[in-house]
Amino acid sequence: MKGVILEIVPEAAIVDISHAVQPFDVLDGALTISQAYAYFPAGTVHLVVVDPGVGSARRPIIASTDKYYFVAPDNGILSLIYAQEERAHVRHITSDHYFLQPLSNTFHARDIFAPVAAYLAKQVDSHKFGDEIEDYTRFAAPKPKVVDAGRMRAVVLKVDRFGNLITNITPKDAPMLFGADPAPFKLVVGSKEITVIRTIYSEGTPGEVFGIMGSMGFLEIAANRGNAAQITGAGKGSEVSILLGGAAAAGKGA
Amino acid sequence: MKGVILEIVPEAAIVDISHAVQPFDVLDGALTISQAYAYFPAGTVHLVVVDPGVGSARRPIIASTDKYYFVAPDNGILSLIYAQEERAHVRHITSDHYFLQPLSNTFHARDIFAPVAAYLAKQVDSHKFGDEIEDYTRFAAPKPKVVDAGRMRAVVLKVDRFGNLITNITPKDAPMLFGADPAPFKLVVGSKEITVIRTIYSEGTPGEVFGIMGSMGFLEIAANRGNAAQITGAGKGSEVSILLGGAAAAGKGA
Amino acid sequence: MKGVILEIVPEAAIVDISHAVQPFDVLDGALTISQAYAYFPAGTVHLVVVDPGVGSARRPIIASTDKYYFVAPDNGILSLIYAQEERAHVRHITSDHYFLQPLSNTFHARDIFAPVAAYLAKQVDSHKFGDEIEDYTRFAAPKPKVVDAGRMRAVVLKVDRFGNLITNITPKDAPMLFGADPAPFKLVVGSKEITVIRTIYSEGTPGEVFGIMGSMGFLEIAANRGNAAQITGAGKGSEVSILLGGAAAAGKGA
Repeated sequence: MKGVILEIVPEAAIVDISHAVQPFDVLDGALTISQAYAYFPAGTVHLVVVDPGVGSARRPIIASTDKYYFVAPDNGILSLIYAQEERAHVRHITSDHYFLQPLSNTFHARDIFAPVAAYLAKQVDSHKFGDEIEDYTRFAAPKPKVVDAGRMRAVVLKVDRFGNLITNITPKDAPMLFGADPAPFKLVVGSKEITVIRTIYSEGTPGEVFGIMGSMGFLEIAANRGNAAQITGAGKGSEVSILLGGAAAAGKGA
Repeated sequence: MKGVILEIVPEAAIVDISHAVQPFDVLDGALTISQAYAYFPAGTVHLVVVDPGVGSARRPIIASTDKYYFVAPDNGILSLIYAQEERAHVRHITSDHYFLQPLSNTFHARDIFAPVAAYLAKQVDSHKFGDEIEDYTRFAAPKPKVVDAGRMRAVVLKVDRFGNLITNITPKDAPMLFGADPAPFKLVVGSKEITVIRTIYSEGTPGEVFGIMGSMGFLEIAANRGNAAQITGAGKGSEVSILLGGAAAAGKGA
Repeated sequence: MKGVILEIVPEAAIVDISHAVQPFDVLDGALTISQAYAYFPAGTVHLVVVDPGVGSARRPIIASTDKYYFVAPDNGILSLIYAQEERAHVRHITSDHYFLQPLSNTFHARDIFAPVAAYLAKQVDSHKFGDEIEDYTRFAAPKPKVVDAGRMRAVVLKVDRFGNLITNITPKDAPMLFGADPAPFKLVVGSKEITVIRTIYSEGTPGEVFGIMGSMGFLEIAANRGNAAQITGAGKGSEVSILLGGAAAAGKGA
């Protein structure tokens, strides 16, 4: 893919955002690009390909925002971009003279997405790649669910390389956890009950598993110099129960 | 290695083709470079170092083709390049004033190969590095073997990060598998029998293991959103039996 | 982090030195940068962040040498640089107008260290980031200990991707191992006794585990085309006993 890009635009600065997106995991790809894209210079072309449907009828698309282009398969991987960028315009890429020939069935990242990204970086107008569409695929990131007045049920979205469990809990979902003087609460994750929110990792006491607002904007379950995934036995997709008030006092379960 | 290159040619664009070549695995290195090199711009210098013989008498070489330079140890790692590029010229690098001093015994990638690649990128003429040789090392990639009229025996060359098993079967080796209306056949890989060839991954039904022509030009054994290596229990070096006609009907074994 | 850097200095050449430093392992980070930094062009800004204390009071610092800048947390990660570069000057970074706002508690690599490195690369004078300090954190790399006349006790500092065990033994620590005609000796590592020093990996006989001077300047325990960590059962932190003379003849233990 990088060869294809440099053939078209030799002066391109190519940056790998991550080598750790899980195979076939569109949500992981969506989370990864959503937390990184806004730190890049205006005009950056973001090439975002997690593509279990390669070769099928799923459309290749370009999404344009005020500052960026995103080139991707239309499988929802840009959903969190759409959520953050109200003025995104999406085009269906149909101008196949920009594609590599012969076109393979199995490696569209190389044959379609990379050359289109390169031509965009070379200032080819996005209008030239295809028409705007409205019916592009988007999904909502899973939100914590209210079970009853004292209980919510959340989920671990991903585990980072430190073993931190990144949940889908934002300050908006559970403001009671984030105040200066939080209400009594308990988080249940895997084999552990968590009753402490820290603001920095190194405040965690030895062996303690705690909650912390992470740089992705979600509550993380972490351990100071430890691996929270290993300690709790939880992983991607694991349930996180939030118990408040009386439910927190009473114990486990949601 | 990158520091050494940038010291010599600060404007170099350095691209990592792969971080996943197996230690000491010259064939894996040969496959990796052979499927990627032709996508890079003319004039690219390919630095290809899998070097179990570092420090020994194996020669450092430069191979030149119409479009590219390859800098490598003479251990066969360029064999698939020689097979694809009839007009490759190979030189034994002997001009040690291009090397880093003091020369280590254990890190020639840094001390020999990286600086030579950098000086080539800086337009130093390849003639200046040493004389042309004819007796360079090359091996034939392992080909499927015909056992009898109805049976062939192939092998898994490598497993990619999706768990796809890349075999050594090309369309030329087994044209009967790739037609619009293929003859009856059966592939036996690990614990599985495969009777379906797909053209795109996402056509695979749940749990199905199938064959597919991969982007490297070889038949791959794959599973839609699954890990074929885990499902079949096969891996690098595993045997793949191809049964045709009556042998396919009769069952296992080659 | 790369986005932040390119936003400030779009023409930056960004090189990843390693993707394999262990989480929270300051010594591993210190070793990694110490063996690579001197190969980069003069003026390179080295961004070195292994930062278990992110968000706490540990200071962000810039170390300047004749040729390079280092941007890092003041947790000792530059200790081996200080040991090699007598004329290093260290500054406490306090000019927070160079930081990204809002400043997170958990990702100072992105919010503090990356922008400071970028402004240094953009030729902003290091004086502008804060005052020079003398009380910066440094640790001595663990040295082999003399137990008695015939015994020393060393340690495995790290395991590389080939499974080589990199010890803390330098030629200065144990000159008797490195001469043309070394005195009788024995190294005990995990389950193996080692009595051979090789100068190149490929001289090792099948199954043999041997010592070799590695490119990092330390004695390594290695196996020709094999994984010494797996063969010996040793790993990072494992003890290495050096027995000399009579002790070597007598056997195990230190």
